[in-house]
Amino acid sequence: MKHVAILGSTGSIGQSTLNIVESYPERFAVASLAAGRNIDAAFDQCIRWRPRVVSMASEELAAALARRLRDKGVTATEVVWGSEGAVRVATVPEVDFVVSAIVGVAGLEATYAAVRAGKTIGLANKEAMVAAGEILTAAAREKNVALLPIDSEHNAIHQCMRAGARREVRQIWLTASGGPFRTLPAPEFRNITVEQALHHPTWVMGRRITIDSATLLNKGLEIIEACRLFDLPPSAIKVTVHPQSTVHSLVEYVDGSLLAQISVTDMRLPILYALSYPERVPSDLRFDMASLADLHFEPPDLERFPCLRLAYEAAEKGGAHAIALNAADEIAVQAFLERVIPFTGIPDTIGQVLQATRETHPATIKEVLALDGQARELAREVLAGREASQRC
Amino acid sequence: MKHVAILGSTGSIGQSTLNIVESYPERFAVASLAAGRNIDAAFDQCIRWRPRVVSMASEELAAALARRLRDKGVTATEVVWGSEGAVRVATVPEVDFVVSAIVGVAGLEATYAAVRAGKTIGLANKEAMVAAGEILTAAAREKNVALLPIDSEHNAIHQCMRAGARREVRQIWLTASGGPFRTLPAPEFRNITVEQALHHPTWVMGRRITIDSATLLNKGLEIIEACRLFDLPPSAIKVTVHPQSTVHSLVEYVDGSLLAQISVTDMRLPILYALSYPERVPSDLRFDMASLADLHFEPPDLERFPCLRLAYEAAEKGGAHAIALNAADEIAVQAFLERVIPFTGIPDTIGQVLQATRETHPATIKEVLALDGQARELAREVLAGREASQRC
Repeated sequence: MKHVAILGSTGSIGQSTLNIVESYPERFAVASLAAGRNIDAAFDQCIRWRPRVVSMASEELAAALARRLRDKGVTATEVVWGSEGAVRVATVPEVDFVVSAIVGVAGLEATYAAVRAGKTIGLANKEAMVAAGEILTAAAREKNVALLPIDSEHNAIHQCMRAGARREVRQIWLTASGGPFRTLPAPEFRNITVEQALHHPTWVMGRRITIDSATLLNKGLEIIEACRLFDLPPSAIKVTVHPQSTVHSLVEYVDGSLLAQISVTDMRLPILYALSYPERVPSDLRFDMASLADLHFEPPDLERFPCLRLAYEAAEKGGAHAIALNAADEIAVQAFLERVIPFTGIPDTIGQVLQATRETHPATIKEVLALDGQARELAREVLAGREASQRC
Repeated sequence: MKHVAILGSTGSIGQSTLNIVESYPERFAVASLAAGRNIDAAFDQCIRWRPRVVSMASEELAAALARRLRDKGVTATEVVWGSEGAVRVATVPEVDFVVSAIVGVAGLEATYAAVRAGKTIGLANKEAMVAAGEILTAAAREKNVALLPIDSEHNAIHQCMRAGARREVRQIWLTASGGPFRTLPAPEFRNITVEQALHHPTWVMGRRITIDSATLLNKGLEIIEACRLFDLPPSAIKVTVHPQSTVHSLVEYVDGSLLAQISVTDMRLPILYALSYPERVPSDLRFDMASLADLHFEPPDLERFPCLRLAYEAAEKGGAHAIALNAADEIAVQAFLERVIPFTGIPDTIGQVLQATRETHPATIKEVLALDGQARELAREVLAGREASQRC
């Protein structure tokens, strides 16, 4: 029986994880949950799963949840809050496996604490690896902890890497759907609307990640994540555009063989894989090979999608530049969604922030968070300067 | 240093193996060769590789080769002949690895002797596994010997199977190019000419295997081979038609993940894989992912390609029926090439032979060879009956 802690239990990955735990009661049990701001969902999860510890975003939310649980006669669940609360959830002694799915750098401290506590990590929080990958992987090596990727591309890489030794990998190929603007001519990129950008062809996701899929910045973050997870240089991480999102990624070995992973596009599959690893357990998440027809692949266009080029630059420099790539993008995407900047303003803003970033490698999570804050500030200045110049 | 014996050294697989040995002189050395009837090629190979033992098809050819080698001052190579000679080649004490590439059941005894002698086997002789797979795999288990497939499909399966445990495999998918008649309407099958059937879209191969690719009987033999190599029931071996022959096969795991292997269509790659296993060694046999464009898949049509259906029947019954499938096909293909029967006469003949075959499981190679002879005789009778009925 594996006892699971979920950081981000009310989000999409958290709910899929609970769905898997529900399907395999003989294998997995919920030990603790970090739920954020959605008190109704957190309450329902506590009633259903009776976790030993639950954490909310704030003291007020925690107090309100504790009251509702008391009214229902639930007294065995300890209610905590804030980033300290998330750390508590991640380090409950009986926890074997921590699903790290708090979006953004918010889940960083708790994920780091889980690694230090020797828990196996299921990593769905891309930004954690981008911002603090060097620190997290070093800690994981020291504590002999497995970091198992839960996003579909890196999970696919993890599976394909089992067909050879690490030193036998020549390079890996991340597949990218190409987003809604894969075939859009370059001159039209300036006029892309928020509505057009939010319409993703394959996956239904949150707003930021949907925009990141449209700019390919999302794939850029995955390049950096892959460097850290699999200890490969940026030059060994390639991208192939594959609109069907059927092949989730590939590993190319030194002998010339490529291994590819194919499955339905359902996050429960990588979650189940990570939770069960090194075993594979039967599921009804079947891919229908008999209905497979056509798969298309093409190289990415770095002219129309400069975010990919920026990501390779940030991956080469690492440290502060990887943090800045992620932070500046979050601010720039918000500005795009608020119609302050055009679609092409997203890479423009990130490029300017990267250029103004000093090369440095943080040694602690605190330093990571400080650099993240600086990069956000810088991005806001770049956007303000842009507005000012437009007013002139 | 691995010392290699090659059964079928002057054939296409044999030559590719020597090409690989030549490219990796620090890893592989030639110990012995079984060359068949091509005395000029055998002579050249002896001069180049100085094997300890070489075998020819007959005593006369062996005597002629020995004379030519003596004239050149080569005296360290022992020249032998016949099936006993092939057994001698396969069991030279310093041999670590035996490439089994003598076409047809001729290589059977030598391959079996190699397994009994504890040699690792690189299996390119499909018919050996079809006719005597039950015996060969039992001996391999007893002697703890690895049977490493060298044909591209099973080699792909072997690679994909490394991403999970054997019991975690739900089923496997063999890819089939579909041959030259993949899109031909059913009524036109009767009028397929020898010239049309010998024109294979992807691979350049021998005449029988080219016809077998056109009828999909070749894929049928591979279904049986896969059952034996990977210890799976016929119902767990599926076929998907994939005209580009880029994906060489796939393994579907119980959790819903499929692993696929992709590479250039060059036999040196599976040979290198088998020779190096469990390592992977760098090669220049690179697949150009950047130029990958479209991959198509479709289910096979068992109406137009009844050989596939016959193969599943033979796989279910095993033993004498698997032997009969292979033997009857060889006779029927010969009759088609000699324009005695139409293209559709191939499955007709095989079907009649299978129906007349008594269910039995041979326990020795001698019994296998006897059943093989009986099936060939039966096929000739079916063909003669057909001619007689046509004369009426």
